Amino acid sequence: MTTAPNAQPSEILLISGPNLNMLGLREPDIYGAVTLDDIHQRAVSFAAKHGIGVRTMQSNHEGVLIDAIQEARLWALGVVINPGGLTHTSVALRDAISSVKLPTVEVHLSNIHAREEFRHHSYLAPVCVGQVCGFGWRSYLLGIEALLGYLGKLVD
Amino acid sequence: MTTAPNAQPSEILLISGPNLNMLGLREPDIYGAVTLDDIHQRAVSFAAKHGIGVRTMQSNHEGVLIDAIQEARLWALGVVINPGGLTHTSVALRDAISSVKLPTVEVHLSNIHAREEFRHHSYLAPVCVGQVCGFGWRSYLLGIEALLGYLGKLVD
Amino acid sequence: MTTAPNAQPSEILLISGPNLNMLGLREPDIYGAVTLDDIHQRAVSFAAKHGIGVRTMQSNHEGVLIDAIQEARLWALGVVINPGGLTHTSVALRDAISSVKLPTVEVHLSNIHAREEFRHHSYLAPVCVGQVCGFGWRSYLLGIEALLGYLGKLVD
Amino acid sequence: MTTAPNAQPSEILLISGPNLNMLGLREPDIYGAVTLDDIHQRAVSFAAKHGIGVRTMQSNHEGVLIDAIQEARLWALGVVINPGGLTHTSVALRDAISSVKLPTVEVHLSNIHAREEFRHHSYLAPVCVGQVCGFGWRSYLLGIEALLGYLGKLVD
Amino acid sequence: MTTAPNAQPSEILLISGPNLNMLGLREPDIYGAVTLDDIHQRAVSFAAKHGIGVRTMQSNHEGVLIDAIQEARLWALGVVINPGGLTHTSVALRDAISSVKLPTVEVHLSNIHAREEFRHHSYLAPVCVGQVCGFGWRSYLLGIEALLGYLGKLVD
Amino acid sequence: MTTAPNAQPSEILLISGPNLNMLGLREPDIYGAVTLDDIHQRAVSFAAKHGIGVRTMQSNHEGVLIDAIQEARLWALGVVINPGGLTHTSVALRDAISSVKLPTVEVHLSNIHAREEFRHHSYLAPVCVGQVCGFGWRSYLLGIEALLGYLGKLVD
Amino acid sequence: MTTAPNAQPSEILLISGPNLNMLGLREPDIYGAVTLDDIHQRAVSFAAKHGIGVRTMQSNHEGVLIDAIQEARLWALGVVINPGGLTHTSVALRDAISSVKLPTVEVHLSNIHAREEFRHHSYLAPVCVGQVCGFGWRSYLLGIEALLGYLGKLVD
Amino acid sequence: MTTAPNAQPSEILLISGPNLNMLGLREPDIYGAVTLDDIHQRAVSFAAKHGIGVRTMQSNHEGVLIDAIQEARLWALGVVINPGGLTHTSVALRDAISSVKLPTVEVHLSNIHAREEFRHHSYLAPVCVGQVCGFGWRSYLLGIEALLGYLGKLVD
Amino acid sequence: MTTAPNAQPSEILLISGPNLNMLGLREPDIYGAVTLDDIHQRAVSFAAKHGIGVRTMQSNHEGVLIDAIQEARLWALGVVINPGGLTHTSVALRDAISSVKLPTVEVHLSNIHAREEFRHHSYLAPVCVGQVCGFGWRSYLLGIEALLGYLGKLVD
Amino acid sequence: MTTAPNAQPSEILLISGPNLNMLGLREPDIYGAVTLDDIHQRAVSFAAKHGIGVRTMQSNHEGVLIDAIQEARLWALGVVINPGGLTHTSVALRDAISSVKLPTVEVHLSNIHAREEFRHHSYLAPVCVGQVCGFGWRSYLLGIEALLGYLGKLVD
Amino acid sequence: MTTAPNAQPSEILLISGPNLNMLGLREPDIYGAVTLDDIHQRAVSFAAKHGIGVRTMQSNHEGVLIDAIQEARLWALGVVINPGGLTHTSVALRDAISSVKLPTVEVHLSNIHAREEFRHHSYLAPVCVGQVCGFGWRSYLLGIEALLGYLGKLVD
Amino acid sequence: MTTAPNAQPSEILLISGPNLNMLGLREPDIYGAVTLDDIHQRAVSFAAKHGIGVRTMQSNHEGVLIDAIQEARLWALGVVINPGGLTHTSVALRDAISSVKLPTVEVHLSNIHAREEFRHHSYLAPVCVGQVCGFGWRSYLLGIEALLGYLGKLVD
Repeated sequence: MTTAPNAQPSEILLISGPNLNMLGLREPDIYGAVTLDDIHQRAVSFAAKHGIGVRTMQSNHEGVLIDAIQEARLWALGVVINPGGLTHTSVALRDAISSVKLPTVEVHLSNIHAREEFRHHSYLAPVCVGQVCGFGWRSYLLGIEALLGYLGKLVD
Repeated sequence: MTTAPNAQPSEILLISGPNLNMLGLREPDIYGAVTLDDIHQRAVSFAAKHGIGVRTMQSNHEGVLIDAIQEARLWALGVVINPGGLTHTSVALRDAISSVKLPTVEVHLSNIHAREEFRHHSYLAPVCVGQVCGFGWRSYLLGIEALLGYLGKLVD
Repeated sequence: MTTAPNAQPSEILLISGPNLNMLGLREPDIYGAVTLDDIHQRAVSFAAKHGIGVRTMQSNHEGVLIDAIQEARLWALGVVINPGGLTHTSVALRDAISSVKLPTVEVHLSNIHAREEFRHHSYLAPVCVGQVCGFGWRSYLLGIEALLGYLGKLVD
Repeated sequence: MTTAPNAQPSEILLISGPNLNMLGLREPDIYGAVTLDDIHQRAVSFAAKHGIGVRTMQSNHEGVLIDAIQEARLWALGVVINPGGLTHTSVALRDAISSVKLPTVEVHLSNIHAREEFRHHSYLAPVCVGQVCGFGWRSYLLGIEALLGYLGKLVD
Repeated sequence: MTTAPNAQPSEILLISGPNLNMLGLREPDIYGAVTLDDIHQRAVSFAAKHGIGVRTMQSNHEGVLIDAIQEARLWALGVVINPGGLTHTSVALRDAISSVKLPTVEVHLSNIHAREEFRHHSYLAPVCVGQVCGFGWRSYLLGIEALLGYLGKLVD
Repeated sequence: MTTAPNAQPSEILLISGPNLNMLGLREPDIYGAVTLDDIHQRAVSFAAKHGIGVRTMQSNHEGVLIDAIQEARLWALGVVINPGGLTHTSVALRDAISSVKLPTVEVHLSNIHAREEFRHHSYLAPVCVGQVCGFGWRSYLLGIEALLGYLGKLVD
Repeated sequence: MTTAPNAQPSEILLISGPNLNMLGLREPDIYGAVTLDDIHQRAVSFAAKHGIGVRTMQSNHEGVLIDAIQEARLWALGVVINPGGLTHTSVALRDAISSVKLPTVEVHLSNIHAREEFRHHSYLAPVCVGQVCGFGWRSYLLGIEALLGYLGKLVD
Repeated sequence: MTTAPNAQPSEILLISGPNLNMLGLREPDIYGAVTLDDIHQRAVSFAAKHGIGVRTMQSNHEGVLIDAIQEARLWALGVVINPGGLTHTSVALRDAISSVKLPTVEVHLSNIHAREEFRHHSYLAPVCVGQVCGFGWRSYLLGIEALLGYLGKLVD
Repeated sequence: MTTAPNAQPSEILLISGPNLNMLGLREPDIYGAVTLDDIHQRAVSFAAKHGIGVRTMQSNHEGVLIDAIQEARLWALGVVINPGGLTHTSVALRDAISSVKLPTVEVHLSNIHAREEFRHHSYLAPVCVGQVCGFGWRSYLLGIEALLGYLGKLVD
Repeated sequence: MTTAPNAQPSEILLISGPNLNMLGLREPDIYGAVTLDDIHQRAVSFAAKHGIGVRTMQSNHEGVLIDAIQEARLWALGVVINPGGLTHTSVALRDAISSVKLPTVEVHLSNIHAREEFRHHSYLAPVCVGQVCGFGWRSYLLGIEALLGYLGKLVD
Repeated sequence: MTTAPNAQPSEILLISGPNLNMLGLREPDIYGAVTLDDIHQRAVSFAAKHGIGVRTMQSNHEGVLIDAIQEARLWALGVVINPGGLTHTSVALRDAISSVKLPTVEVHLSNIHAREEFRHHSYLAPVCVGQVCGFGWRSYLLGIEALLGYLGKLVD
Repeated sequence: MTTAPNAQPSEILLISGPNLNMLGLREPDIYGAVTLDDIHQRAVSFAAKHGIGVRTMQSNHEGVLIDAIQEARLWALGVVINPGGLTHTSVALRDAISSVKLPTVEVHLSNIHAREEFRHHSYLAPVCVGQVCGFGWRSYLLGIEALLGYLGKLVD
């Protein structure tokens, strides 16, 4: 987990699930050439303007993602998550979000509603504040903005 | 249709479907007390910062919404639409979006994935760029931001 | 919209959806030869005995029906609605009823449960007080009686 | 079976299925505090105004209900039935109604369309004249009125 | 339960479920004018030619049917059953047949596969030897013949 | 097609579909060791007692079965058919039966309701007089008896 | 509604639903560059050869389409309709056709059976004489020809 | 109904549905050779250690089971029920439990989740405290223990 | 296969599936009294006006139909097919059309969308140019006209 | 993995899946304030009375759970498992139980049958001895008791 | 059916269903340009290395395929079959494989799991030893190798 | 991960999912007594004949499998994978295969189409070259052969 130095109490968790580390490599016709590191930097910059820190992480392991969400209840204001393929299959990840009771925003790079039928359903969305999908890396920034707005932390 | 005076060529259409005129009156525990006019003003202000005009409209009539989308192909850069209850039932509205080929973003005040089963499916989403839902009136602003980003019109 | 002259504050809205203006012409083996105007007169007479006025309307346009329901929140005690074919397809009409929060009774001339499978499900019924179906024009009177009873307006 | 003394040829059967004897005790937030005996008295009074007698019965036993319906073909003008939970599961009760060919009206205290999914379907409704639901004890009276109207027995 | 006097050890149970006592009265266009008593007599006569007795019964009560099947394990060679509407809904009746382990034949007067969709499925058939349907009262005789054949009791 | 010499006008068609020529070889634990020829002989003998001839045929070809059914309308009183695997898949065979309008009885050696789910549905049954299944080769004889009964050709 | 001058009693209604006014603009790879006006002219010419007039109309409003169909019962011989996206969602439009009892032919430019799953089902088709789809603008002419043939109005 | 002499106010109802009286006889490879009487004795002994009495009953009649549950609200602390085949089909039994509002535990001898698909769903479980299945007669004792624990009546 | 003598290179294949040889005999209330030969003659006459020959065939054998389609790729401009009952069940016939890549039009005498549910789906339609149904024998002529139009072979 | 010191050969594995480490923190209105450590201690105490040791573990990682189950086949008498959200999604966990062939009992704190539809199905239950759910932490003890009973290890 | 001269007792049957004779002509982007004859030669060569003969056949007729499989039980060691479109629709072909009890391997040129939904299900696979799909003509050789391996006939 | 010493650039990845390490121990009646190590050795030997190296790995952890697939894009020619139970549940694993764009072959020891319904569907198959199942350990070798064939690496 990459965390900004001197983490402040005003931080959120930005978390990406399986295969998102492949961004820029993976199906660029769908996702573009931006890497996950690029997105993380943009996310940190964006949130910093509002005085909020962002801890970022990615894992291909459902269990690691759950561990991180559980741990976040001790320090985070909220969570922005791109669950990748686990969106459609993981009740355990859903329960992790339910259990920590941190406000959570679900984001997707692609428009999941325009892809295979099985990607139209999200186990996580019903326990999240809301969902943003279809805007590439910008979905991440919009998700953070949405979360900060929800938290009343957006600086005009 | 309410349009800003001296509409510029750089305009988008912000369109709301059935019952959204009831905002502030309707189920405030779900949608809050902000009215649609309030949202329209915030949308116009937000877009103005990026040099983009916003024409706003609302109708309870599917046909009127379709007419407006068709007409928009003559002047608009793109569309942000909250289709209300038509989201889940209107193939005609979907076809309108397909036919004008304007980039369109679907927004919802509430988290449709956390409500009744029949609200989880959108006929429009597959022909939109993306979807934003669950953030109240802020969904509208995020939708406009997403559209402007998609159009390369976001001023830093 | 046909309204009784000198409308009183104690009024209800009686509303009929698509094709109900064809009553007496349409499939008389199912619906009988009574016209919608006949029904309206009987409804007005019936309610008058209980000191309640009835404003009646019919439209083939979903949007007009929604407009009328929204407007009714300013003057009506409640709504009796025969949504016709929109019963089975209109989430927007359902949302209109939800949003005005007027007690509403759904009525049908025919027994929708004895017809095609797709007529067995009503989008509106779950947000109504109740449903009456199968008794021809009498369904309207029973629906008004049920509404008045619910409102405590039935004169013994 | 409780029957009025000196039952006349002009009688109908009012029949209630499983657990309706618990009315007033059972889930009063849904059904109110009126007992089944109260309803029976009101039903008898109501029908008496139209010169019609009402024989009432209740049973938790599907077989007893079927027996009563079969027997009613020898003396009744028609049937008003609240089948309770059997509504959704009993083909045998449906067949009983079909076999006696007495006009039958189905009634429910609660709005079954606003409850669990499995309560939305009725096996009986397709072989009944019509259905009334959602108006508490008043559903019974409306059901009787509907039946009398169907039979041409309503005294103006 | 009607039983032949001096019942022999070589007997079978012929059992009919709800509403079959209405035979001759009920929907004669589907079932004909033969009564259940007629069928019972023909069944007794037919089996007698093969030296087998038939105990017959009918009930509208699922529980009574189950009791009879359970008791039959003490004296019967096998069972022929027309479960009526319970065919499609009663797991309990199915379990009764499973538990007594008597060879059982399911019969129906009408062709259940040509009627409503819900009549196409039988809970009992999978635990029976076989099924005969569509031949009116003759289905009963064919069912008995099938059972006797299965038992090796058919006299040439 | 094997036909009895000097075929009489009083004949029926006994027809077996794919793989039934394998009887005695095929899955004897389910079907027994009796061959189709054995069954044909028993069928001919049985019908002869009632003065009725039986023409028998078997084919693995759907088209040949349809041809035979069509041709039968010129000489047959009715049809007894074991469609084998085509039972569950052949609309064409169903249409053949509908088109010739000969009374037809469907038979099966095994209890199709006790086997795989896809064997529970028959495309043919709804256009047949009735169905007999589960009694091995005896299903054929019962089917013929049922057909003769239906035709009023059973000699007491 | 565009109507030919001096409309004769021998006229039919040609009606197009939502988004068909976009023809030539909309997804030309699917629909070609012919406009709806072009089609209307060809339709008028074609029918004129058979001495039949054609009144044409298009609307994006379901209610307007229903109004037009209802009105047509006063002057039209029959209806040819391309319901556009309403094909798959409008019970109200279906009921309009049922209620006027004018022979109606459903047409589609594209082969709806080769597109998205939800376009395979038509609510209107079951109450129409027949359906023609997949032949571009020619579907309209074929539909008119089919209707005239049905009406016995085709001049050889 | 068998009840212990001198029934105390501290009693629970142990109730078994259709065919459970066949225990020891019925499919012993699934259920073992223990009879229902054996289980009842063990249940009484077990509860007695905790100072709680057990009234036991079994019936093949749904109505009798409902009657018993209704009556139990006058004397019982709670209910342990093995509904047998009614588990999967009886809304009426579910409603009985709902209406008496006694804490209820559902038990099954066999592991219903490892049997036929239709046995996986229980209408009763959602209105019970919990469910125990798969442990043979021991399921009964575990169910009683679970109920006593829920009631705070377990003596350490 | 019946072919016109001196077949020209400008020919199409007109092919009919199972039971269509029964036309005029089969369910005349649905299909009328015209025979398939009549239709073939009308088809040949119609196409001749446009300088196109028609080879006609009918078979009850799926394999024969596939053989004919495959062979047609060597001489035909296109195919008009009424697949009969195979419409709804034959992937093999669909693959034959796909593999020869001849433009194909599917026709039906009856309105398949107004008949049994299983007739609403066609395996062939998605690989055809389009579909015509509901116009009796005229469906064939309309199908040929549609094909010729598609091929640019219609003489004005 | 926490194991009791001096582990005996007579031990069972008690295993909890994702998010169960949050017990006492997570949705206490559903699960109560007892922690997983509390439950483990009670489980160890309970089993100790019967001379059986309990090794306990919890993980948010499906793979770790599978590893533990596989390893347990070398030392454990059986398994009690609360699979958490994996109950409804993990075929791999099911296969782990199948492969080690240790008797396994599935337990749940909450009544999964009274929660969301997707929680009603368990992939594990069909390969377990049985299931206990709905009794909070007591479900664990009941599960252990059930397992010991199954193993014949319960000391009276 | 093409058979190698001097067929040995050690032979297998290689059988291809409808439209596979079109290989090289049909949708070459999916299947490549290799013809079925090419494949047969490679199959014969491959098997010959292991001392096994291959009899090959192809037919568009389901019945012919069934006949061939039935006949093969008299001379073949096993069967490799590419059922083409019949894979998804033919219970009769499945039954043929079941009835001859020859070990059978199902092969497909294309990856059926990556094509239309209806191609994902095979009626034959459950009665085959296994399935190989997606490797073009090589699927045939792999299928033969798999069969020989299963038969213990692979020469190292 | 076990890798051959001196790994060559010409290598493939052979990967096995959850519980496959139990091979030889697990349900030997289904899978045989061969261990995964045995299979790995045979795989290495087989590929070596074609000059290709094989790196093998197994894990019960979805995340580890995804990591390995991602890493393989840096060194592997392709992948052969037996995903075990994850076959039916892991979209994340599917996405891993999609993202690395290495040709992948799915293999299964057992015939998944002959087992439980939920094993018939594979999330991975649609993004693989093809699938081999049902041939025990030989499925692995066939899968490698298929992959090498696809890669053009098979030495004759």
